Amino acid sequence: MTNQAAVGTAPTFNNGVNVDALFETVEAVKAAPQIADFQFRLSNRWLGGDHNRSTVVGFHGACEDHDHMKGPFTLDNAEPPVLLGGGTAPNPVEYILHALAGCLTTTMVYHAAARGVSLTSVSSELEGDLDLRGFLGLDETVRKGFSTVRVTMRVESEADVETLESLVQFSPVYDIISKSLPVDVRVEKA
Amino acid sequence: MTNQAAVGTAPTFNNGVNVDALFETVEAVKAAPQIADFQFRLSNRWLGGDHNRSTVVGFHGACEDHDHMKGPFTLDNAEPPVLLGGGTAPNPVEYILHALAGCLTTTMVYHAAARGVSLTSVSSELEGDLDLRGFLGLDETVRKGFSTVRVTMRVESEADVETLESLVQFSPVYDIISKSLPVDVRVEKA
Repeated sequence: MTNQAAVGTAPTFNNGVNVDALFETVEAVKAAPQIADFQFRLSNRWLGGDHNRSTVVGFHGACEDHDHMKGPFTLDNAEPPVLLGGGTAPNPVEYILHALAGCLTTTMVYHAAARGVSLTSVSSELEGDLDLRGFLGLDETVRKGFSTVRVTMRVESEADVETLESLVQFSPVYDIISKSLPVDVRVEKA
Repeated sequence: MTNQAAVGTAPTFNNGVNVDALFETVEAVKAAPQIADFQFRLSNRWLGGDHNRSTVVGFHGACEDHDHMKGPFTLDNAEPPVLLGGGTAPNPVEYILHALAGCLTTTMVYHAAARGVSLTSVSSELEGDLDLRGFLGLDETVRKGFSTVRVTMRVESEADVETLESLVQFSPVYDIISKSLPVDVRVEKA
């Protein structure tokens, strides 16, 4: 579960991923599935108007709590002027596209590494269509979020397109966005 | 559609939101629905291993293309060491929680402003459960993304909890995550 090699043993890397550690992780999870239970956590605070800030301290996984060693990470949301904001940061739906781009890329890279497929470069372009009438409550037949998202990934690799497309099917964020998910929102008075 | 007031007229703000401009936007969209058609865009590039970077230059909305005046924004994804990464940035599913927290907050703030509800403070805590066996392909019955997401929002306001809960139902990211959405991923050889 770590990228530390035993002393005197050079780990095998593919696509910058420690493949020995990846297979060790798979074997560890097979032997003890509770290792696979992760919980990601974050807190957020409103800073006024369109501006709010998240803090990411750590997470739970592999049977213990972890702090982000290079954290805590802070992330800001804002809105552009045309959406009545100060434009100081990306907005939440742009972060959704960022999460999707990153997860598709990392999933392709890790699964390619596990299958012995080398990648030279990966880049992607994303578009998400959003009809503001949903958010504004002007038409109940218009959904509030994206109506559709398009992703084009350009990959330099000896592997064929079908193989590369099969790898990204394992992406957690692709699953989160494309499929429905129970989201429990509770509001409490402070 | 802007937060510029007419010369000599002080705009009305509530919760830091220009309520006059918000109602002008609503009226403009009612008169010309194509104003509501937004397209958010982003590009991403793999930097090796667990690390990739998105660039957000601009978007389309209100019938024209806009550059982020304080951008382009760059956003990094990475993975912590226990997930075989260098831990230099949040990971994609943490960005999903950030997008959700921000969107619920901004939605509450804007819709409260429109209804004349003042908010003093908004903070939130989020948790997302993820069973890594889905990503690893070890069990087809385990989903790859979050199995569930919990959000607790703490709000200082004279409004009651039911009113506050009704406001966040307009959140685009809540819609994106909680409901299924067509995501078209195409892979091309570079």
